Amino acid sequence: MPDFPAPADPRFGLARRVTLPGPLTLDSGARLSPVDIAYETYGTLAADAGNALLICHALTMDQHVAGPNPRTGKQGWWTRMVGPGRPIDTDRFFVVCANVLGSCMGSSGPASIDPATGCPYGMDFPVITIRDMVRAQAMLLDHLGIGTLAGVVGGSMGGMQALSWAATYPDRVRAAVVIASTARHTAQNIAFHEVGRQAVMADPKWRDGAYYDGDPPAAGLAVARMAAHITYLSEAGLTEKFGRRLQAREQKSFGFDADFQIESYLRYQGLSFTDRFDANSYLYITRAMDYFDLAEEHGGLLANAFRGTATRFCLVSFDTDWLYPTAESRSIVQALNAAGARVSFVELTSPYGHDAFLLDAPELERVVGGFMAADR
Amino acid sequence: MPDFPAPADPRFGLARRVTLPGPLTLDSGARLSPVDIAYETYGTLAADAGNALLICHALTMDQHVAGPNPRTGKQGWWTRMVGPGRPIDTDRFFVVCANVLGSCMGSSGPASIDPATGCPYGMDFPVITIRDMVRAQAMLLDHLGIGTLAGVVGGSMGGMQALSWAATYPDRVRAAVVIASTARHTAQNIAFHEVGRQAVMADPKWRDGAYYDGDPPAAGLAVARMAAHITYLSEAGLTEKFGRRLQAREQKSFGFDADFQIESYLRYQGLSFTDRFDANSYLYITRAMDYFDLAEEHGGLLANAFRGTATRFCLVSFDTDWLYPTAESRSIVQALNAAGARVSFVELTSPYGHDAFLLDAPELERVVGGFMAADR
Repeated sequence: MPDFPAPADPRFGLARRVTLPGPLTLDSGARLSPVDIAYETYGTLAADAGNALLICHALTMDQHVAGPNPRTGKQGWWTRMVGPGRPIDTDRFFVVCANVLGSCMGSSGPASIDPATGCPYGMDFPVITIRDMVRAQAMLLDHLGIGTLAGVVGGSMGGMQALSWAATYPDRVRAAVVIASTARHTAQNIAFHEVGRQAVMADPKWRDGAYYDGDPPAAGLAVARMAAHITYLSEAGLTEKFGRRLQAREQKSFGFDADFQIESYLRYQGLSFTDRFDANSYLYITRAMDYFDLAEEHGGLLANAFRGTATRFCLVSFDTDWLYPTAESRSIVQALNAAGARVSFVELTSPYGHDAFLLDAPELERVVGGFMAADR
Repeated sequence: MPDFPAPADPRFGLARRVTLPGPLTLDSGARLSPVDIAYETYGTLAADAGNALLICHALTMDQHVAGPNPRTGKQGWWTRMVGPGRPIDTDRFFVVCANVLGSCMGSSGPASIDPATGCPYGMDFPVITIRDMVRAQAMLLDHLGIGTLAGVVGGSMGGMQALSWAATYPDRVRAAVVIASTARHTAQNIAFHEVGRQAVMADPKWRDGAYYDGDPPAAGLAVARMAAHITYLSEAGLTEKFGRRLQAREQKSFGFDADFQIESYLRYQGLSFTDRFDANSYLYITRAMDYFDLAEEHGGLLANAFRGTATRFCLVSFDTDWLYPTAESRSIVQALNAAGARVSFVELTSPYGHDAFLLDAPELERVVGGFMAADR
């Protein structure tokens, strides 16, 4: 794991957290105050603050993109991509990654204390949007003294934030990298998320979100995670990895144990998720993703979101990603072309489906590294 | 709705049920006795019993294929296909449809009374397979005085039974029609079913399956149904039918109500399912489907299942079916060709995904009607 020495400025470094007074006015009209943001920075901010790059994370990820994760003891979730000498080179860029609004890794979310009551918000936390997440990140950048970003980079929900950044703050983004993502959630995307939310809410331990005295709705959240996890993998990848192989047995049990490896794997994914994620945060963030429709925010025409932009765009999709398939990236590229934006687009081949962007993907690293190296 | 007059033979007609002494020896080695089978017949059995045709139903369907469903008051689930003058013509064929073993519409299943205890089996019901369902159907045909079937026809899990019929009783099947089906469940198929089972089992009301005194695990079963339902529909079909349209409101609620039509639709599908289906039956039948691997039953080579068969086969797939995609049908056709069987195959175009076989599909009706009209 690379060593990131503590910078002199106490705002910079690993495992930072700031409480900003706000208020942050949300798309719903609600005003959030204060606004906690947990984040990490890597590298050194240039004197002109011109080398800052923001990484936006996916649904269940966190701010520990390249440093050690203090909760799990594991290394960051994108050390392949971010670090000294990596495609997003922390010797060159000052990289910032913040836990999104609504999450549960230190930023304000439903598990945070509501100053009005002194108790956790629960379902009184306001419903947020992808653009609200971006607004909170902009507040953080103001706090850090960063005006314009050399780049904003994200995969999946991180890509939605990157698009929203370019549309909301066009003068603050020189380059946007959007990986395995979409400009709007489809009916099928919403459907899978709704199954997950209903699984959480069907768990009697959910108790309308007021479970923070202990005994959270782990069973419901595990089912939600299992359903979502299927969408992150390709059918071919599942067949290659698991097929119909049995789990630690010679023949079928003629029972309801996890006979098949895929069953055992899914159960593990579901259970382990509940150790690290808050069920209410899962509800809020999936809702934000379902609400995301960048065209709708711009009069129904996606090109309007990028009219006159000077931002350079890089779009990447994976051929086996059926959650946000290549057609979604292509429609973004068409809108960017219609808006006269500079855009490069590549569909990469991978057996791993949507999760490919988090896995061993040398081609992705070359594409992102090359694109960011071209920053003036 | 067509009129089906009561036949003179009390074994024939609508809403029949028979208790056969058995025992039925199952793939697990367990012996089931007695064996209840609920079924319907339509049309008149020829003097030589040569015009009998068996319809096999899908996971959550029932024996009411062409007659009125006494539970719902609605017409049968395949009246487009089966009836007087329909592609499967009850003026010509004596059509039999039986509720599958393990189900909950009158055939033996986990809700049946265990003679050993006088109480419902619950999870003491033996785990069954697709082949066990077929064996129970064969027992029923013996009871009805039917030796050879002019045809066995089924979609989805019904297609699995049709394949298993041809492989298990090759001398009793002149023709098999296999629609939108597969010869084995893939890792992805198993994964979706496992999510559903875990949703049921996570519901505290499931109580290890001993809930028949009332208060069944409806919430868990509804979530299971919602997850499964997504797999029955195509992404394009969902977009066409629902898109991102809101449900009875002008704008988003910024809450967790069913803002989107797709959410409202899925919730309705989940809830209404719990009124008509037993949660334990859902566990048992999905397990039978996951266990299904016709090649595995024949030394690992699918062609071995059909070696020397005289049965004519008709395979049909739908281009937007991602649950059992065309590639699955094609691999069955290849195995049948390798076995020297007579087989016709067509991939039909439909926007409706897997559910296409139950919906308005004139091409499917022409294919099935033409194939069965060629019966000697």
